[in-house]
Amino acid sequence: MLQGNAVIAQSGGPTAVINSSVCGAVQTWLAAENRPGTIYAAISGIKGFFDEDLLDLSAQPAEAIAGLRWTPGAGLFSCRYKVSEEEYPRLVEICQKYNIRYFFYNGGNDSMDTCNKMSLAAEKLGYEMRVIGIPKTVDNDLPITDHCPGFASAAKYLAATVMETGIDLASVATKNKVCIIEAMGRNAGWLTAAAALAKRTPDEAPHLIYLPEVPFDTEQFLRDVQVVYDRLGYCFVVASEGIMDKDGNYIAADGRVDAFGHAQLSGAGETLKNLVEERLGLKARCNTLGTAQRSAMHFASKTDADEAYATGVRAVELALAGKSGLMITLNREPGEEYRCTLGEAPLSSVANVEKKVPREWVNAEGNYVTDDFIKYCRPLIEGEVAVPMRGGLPDYVALNMQLGRVQK
Amino acid sequence: MLQGNAVIAQSGGPTAVINSSVCGAVQTWLAAENRPGTIYAAISGIKGFFDEDLLDLSAQPAEAIAGLRWTPGAGLFSCRYKVSEEEYPRLVEICQKYNIRYFFYNGGNDSMDTCNKMSLAAEKLGYEMRVIGIPKTVDNDLPITDHCPGFASAAKYLAATVMETGIDLASVATKNKVCIIEAMGRNAGWLTAAAALAKRTPDEAPHLIYLPEVPFDTEQFLRDVQVVYDRLGYCFVVASEGIMDKDGNYIAADGRVDAFGHAQLSGAGETLKNLVEERLGLKARCNTLGTAQRSAMHFASKTDADEAYATGVRAVELALAGKSGLMITLNREPGEEYRCTLGEAPLSSVANVEKKVPREWVNAEGNYVTDDFIKYCRPLIEGEVAVPMRGGLPDYVALNMQLGRVQK
Repeated sequence: MLQGNAVIAQSGGPTAVINSSVCGAVQTWLAAENRPGTIYAAISGIKGFFDEDLLDLSAQPAEAIAGLRWTPGAGLFSCRYKVSEEEYPRLVEICQKYNIRYFFYNGGNDSMDTCNKMSLAAEKLGYEMRVIGIPKTVDNDLPITDHCPGFASAAKYLAATVMETGIDLASVATKNKVCIIEAMGRNAGWLTAAAALAKRTPDEAPHLIYLPEVPFDTEQFLRDVQVVYDRLGYCFVVASEGIMDKDGNYIAADGRVDAFGHAQLSGAGETLKNLVEERLGLKARCNTLGTAQRSAMHFASKTDADEAYATGVRAVELALAGKSGLMITLNREPGEEYRCTLGEAPLSSVANVEKKVPREWVNAEGNYVTDDFIKYCRPLIEGEVAVPMRGGLPDYVALNMQLGRVQK
Repeated sequence: MLQGNAVIAQSGGPTAVINSSVCGAVQTWLAAENRPGTIYAAISGIKGFFDEDLLDLSAQPAEAIAGLRWTPGAGLFSCRYKVSEEEYPRLVEICQKYNIRYFFYNGGNDSMDTCNKMSLAAEKLGYEMRVIGIPKTVDNDLPITDHCPGFASAAKYLAATVMETGIDLASVATKNKVCIIEAMGRNAGWLTAAAALAKRTPDEAPHLIYLPEVPFDTEQFLRDVQVVYDRLGYCFVVASEGIMDKDGNYIAADGRVDAFGHAQLSGAGETLKNLVEERLGLKARCNTLGTAQRSAMHFASKTDADEAYATGVRAVELALAGKSGLMITLNREPGEEYRCTLGEAPLSSVANVEKKVPREWVNAEGNYVTDDFIKYCRPLIEGEVAVPMRGGLPDYVALNMQLGRVQK
C-alpha cells in the first residue's frame, strides 16, 4: 500500500448532506487497518490547501466526526476558486511537503476538473498519488452518475415547502391569488423540477414549473398563469433562478433602476411577481427560499444522506485499494424497486460537463415536467433523517479548529 | 344544555397548527354526550357564513378530522373580511335559519372583534348563543394570553432555518458575505425575534435582528453590519418585513421604479440586501421565506401543536358548559419548568388589541433581543411532531367538500 497521508476538502456551495460524505470518508480512513498515515482537512477547500491551512482530523473527538453526518454547511469550509494551470505544480509541492499521497475532493463539476488536473500534474512530476472525487451538488448536474448526493435532500425540502405553501395558498385564495417560489439552479433545472413531487391530485400545487433548459417567454407565462387562475381562482408557480429568454438573457435582470439610477438585479421570482401584478392585476407573492434549500438537514432525505455517506466510504476504499483519477458514481439498478449501487467514472469524463434536464422530461408547452421525471425523482426523497435535537432545534456540530491544526 | 347546532370557521393567515385547534374542537363536539346538534364548518370564514356555505362535519370520515391535526393551511378555508356594523344582524339571522347556537371562530385580533360584535348582536336581538374565540396567529400579538397557538411552530422553523443557513454562510464566507432573512410580522416582531433561538455561541448566526417595534435607521444598520463583518468576515441579519423608519415609513417601500416607471414595492429584506451591496460593497443575499414560515408543519413544535389542539377542546367544553363571549388563553405557570394551563379572557378585552414585543426585551442598540426574550420563547419550541409520511413527503389531508354540504 502506498504510504503517506491523506487530505480531504470541500468546494462550492454546500448541501444538506455534504458532510455525510466527509464523515464516511474520514471514519473509513481512521478505521482502516494499517492506515498509511493520517488524514488532514484542507480548511476552505483548495484555497486553504494553497495556504497550507491543514487540520489533522485524527485529533478531533470521534463524536465530532460522527456529528458531521447530520450537520449541514461545509464542515471543512468551502471555497470557490479556479486553480490556474501554472498553480498545479505548487499543489503537488505542498503534497510532497506534508507527505500527502491521497487527495479527496468533495464538490461539483469545477472540483472534478481540479481533481483531474491535479492528478495529471502529479503524474507529470512523477509524484505517485491517489486522487478521488466525491460528488455533491444540489444542482444534480454531474454527468454519468444517476444523480448527485445533496440533490435529493434539497428536492425533498423544496417539494414539502411547495406542498405546504400550496395548501396555504389554496386556503386563503380570497386574498392572495398567485404564489411564486424561486428555486435554486442557475443552469440546470433538476431542483426546480422536483417541486412537482408535491402534487398528489391534478389541482394541487404546483401548477406551472419553469426550468432554465426551456427558453422563457414572458407573454406565454402570463397566459399560462391566467389559464390556471381562471380555472381555480389561484395559481402556484415554481421557477428556477436561472430562467432566461430565447436570446439567453436572464429574466432576473429586468432593467429596473433604484433611487440612484443604478440598474438593479432582482431575482427571477420577484420579477415574475411584479409581472403578474402589473400585467394581470392579480395580487402575487414570491417566496425565495435561497440557501435554506441546500442546508435543510432537518428534513433531509434518508436515501440521500445514506448515499452521500456511502460515496465517502467508497472513495477511501478505492484509494486504499490503489485506484485513482476517479469520481464515485451512483448507479441506479434496473427494475421497478429503487436500488442504487456505487460505481466510478474517470475524472476526465466528468470534469466540466454539465448534465441538464432532458427536453423530453419537460412537457410540450415547456411549463411542467413529465411523469418520467417524477418516476426518476420520487425514490430519491424517500425516508427521513432523525437529526439529534437539543432545546427544540437540531444539535449540529462544528469541528474544533484548534485541535490538530498543522504548524506550517 | 342549550339545544342547537354549532359552527366553526377560520380567519386570516393560516398557521402550521391552526387545524390542530379545529381538530380538537370538532372531535370534542362529536364525542360529547348528548351533544345538542351537529357541527358545521363555515367554508372560507365569516365570508362563507354570509354565503351560507356550510359543511356538516359529522359527515366527514373520522380519519379526515383526525388528519387535520397534522395538516397546515386553513383546512376550512379562510378569509380576510371586515364585517360592517350593519351586517351583524344578518349573521344572527343565518344562525336562526340553521338553528346555530354555538359559534367558534379560530383567528387573530380582527376575528376576536368579529366574535365580540356577533355575541353582542345576538344578545341585542334576544337570540341566545355561545360564542368562543380560539386564538391563532404566527404574529403572537394577541393580548392577555401568554402566547398564541401557531407562533411557536413558525418560530421553531425560522430558528432552524437561521441556524442552517447561518452554518452555510459561515462555511462559504469566501464568496457571500452578508445573508439577510426577511421574517413575517408586519406590526409585531415576535417571530423575527425568535430567530435568536438559533444562536448557541456568541459568533453564530444571527448577528443582528431588527423588529418593527424599534424605529429603523439605515445608517445605523450599515454601521452594525460593517462592525460584524470586520470581526467575522461575514454577517447574518434577520429583519421583520414590517421594519419602518422613525417617521413610520416602511423600509420595504424604497422608491424604486420599474422599466415602465411604476413605483415598485420590494420587500424589506431585498431593500436591505441592495443597501449592503451598494453602500458597503459586500456581496449579499436575501432569503424571503414568506408563507413557508406559517405552514411548515413538517417541523412544527409539539408544544405548540398540543396547545393548539387543547384550545380547540377547551373552547367546546366551555361553550357546552354554558360560557360565552370568551377567548381561550394560554397561561404560563410560575416556576423554572415550563408549564402552561388554559384560561379565558373576555372577547371585549382582546378584540383589536395588539401586543408588541416590549422594548426592554430588545437591547439598547435596537439590533438584538435580550435573554429575557429567549427565556420566554425557548420552551415554546420544544418537541417535534411526527407527521405521517407518504412517498417521502407529509401525508396531509383535505376535507371532502362534497360530503355533508348543506343545501341552502
